[in-house]
Amino acid sequence: MFHRVLDWVTEDRMQLINITDRVNEIVRKSGVREGLIHLQSLHTTTALFLNEWQGALLEDVRGFFSQLVNSAAYYRHNDPEYSDCERKNADSHLRGMMMGQTLCLQVRNASVLLGTWQSIILAEFDGPRSRSVAVQVSGV
Amino acid sequence: MFHRVLDWVTEDRMQLINITDRVNEIVRKSGVREGLIHLQSLHTTTALFLNEWQGALLEDVRGFFSQLVNSAAYYRHNDPEYSDCERKNADSHLRGMMMGQTLCLQVRNASVLLGTWQSIILAEFDGPRSRSVAVQVSGV
Amino acid sequence: MFHRVLDWVTEDRMQLINITDRVNEIVRKSGVREGLIHLQSLHTTTALFLNEWQGALLEDVRGFFSQLVNSAAYYRHNDPEYSDCERKNADSHLRGMMMGQTLCLQVRNASVLLGTWQSIILAEFDGPRSRSVAVQVSGV
Repeated sequence: MFHRVLDWVTEDRMQLINITDRVNEIVRKSGVREGLIHLQSLHTTTALFLNEWQGALLEDVRGFFSQLVNSAAYYRHNDPEYSDCERKNADSHLRGMMMGQTLCLQVRNASVLLGTWQSIILAEFDGPRSRSVAVQVSGV
Repeated sequence: MFHRVLDWVTEDRMQLINITDRVNEIVRKSGVREGLIHLQSLHTTTALFLNEWQGALLEDVRGFFSQLVNSAAYYRHNDPEYSDCERKNADSHLRGMMMGQTLCLQVRNASVLLGTWQSIILAEFDGPRSRSVAVQVSGV
Repeated sequence: MFHRVLDWVTEDRMQLINITDRVNEIVRKSGVREGLIHLQSLHTTTALFLNEWQGALLEDVRGFFSQLVNSAAYYRHNDPEYSDCERKNADSHLRGMMMGQTLCLQVRNASVLLGTWQSIILAEFDGPRSRSVAVQVSGV
């Protein structure tokens, strides 16, 4: 069982990062040829998911997240009367929760199994921040 | 490979339950120090996900689910002409489907790997009911 | 570790397919009695998830996806000025991303662990197409 932590410093409040190459680098280092790789972003206001890495589409993705969770709505988490959260980031929590912070993928022939158009994307929903993704590779 | 089933009796139609401590208790009993833990709620009208366990935010989360899937809309699943479902719970099915009923997490140093603000949450979308979560711990 | 690829030719732009029986057939062939099964659809405009397989509900599910992501909205991915995508399928990408293309389930007693009402569903969001789901079974 092989473990590593990948770190990033994000630059925008909402930001999409293609982490496919760094994940594959870990698989190569692990020496595992067939098995599973489990990724977990350790932050509730981030997410991990698959999609095509195309500039125009990524803009649509950011627009969709903005529309799915209305940042301008009233949230109790942002209200000092009910919450001591100073980041006013209820919208970030809801986006992270909807998309999920874990991703489990197959390792095949010493690399991550992905379809032609599938990239592994880390979404920052409350940046800029320092972010960590814990990676575990198991198998043979 | 270590298996257990966790049971709950829920009290509200929509209810959020922090199951982190009970999951960690199973990891301790399993004796596994490094590996994977797989959780599956066995009911389509429930979900498992990660988020911060804070009262104000949990109210926002419930409000968001209510808004994401409109309980008052027409659903064929609730229409006796098309369906024999007496629970009228199409909204519960859609919420459970969106959030998912499975969660796979890393076991590290004999406990579930979670970021500082990540709790494991079981969501009831069609209570009150008896609910079961099947847990599998594998590793070394 | 046992690997297979399941193939389908879909018939509609949006289509739901119950793949539970074919997944269980693979588990039987694998000889694994206790472990994990990992499914990954290799296409960004598809998804895998659990729900009840009931005709009336499936119509509600399709209606919900249509409403969650507005196919008639403007998307940069569909705009020849910004994108060379000829399929105009930004809506399909957003639906696939929201629902996810991976599913990890427990193998118990030589079959996939599922609650009474849980079926494994492959969603086509940009058909008709040829589609493949990579399956890995591990355990003892």
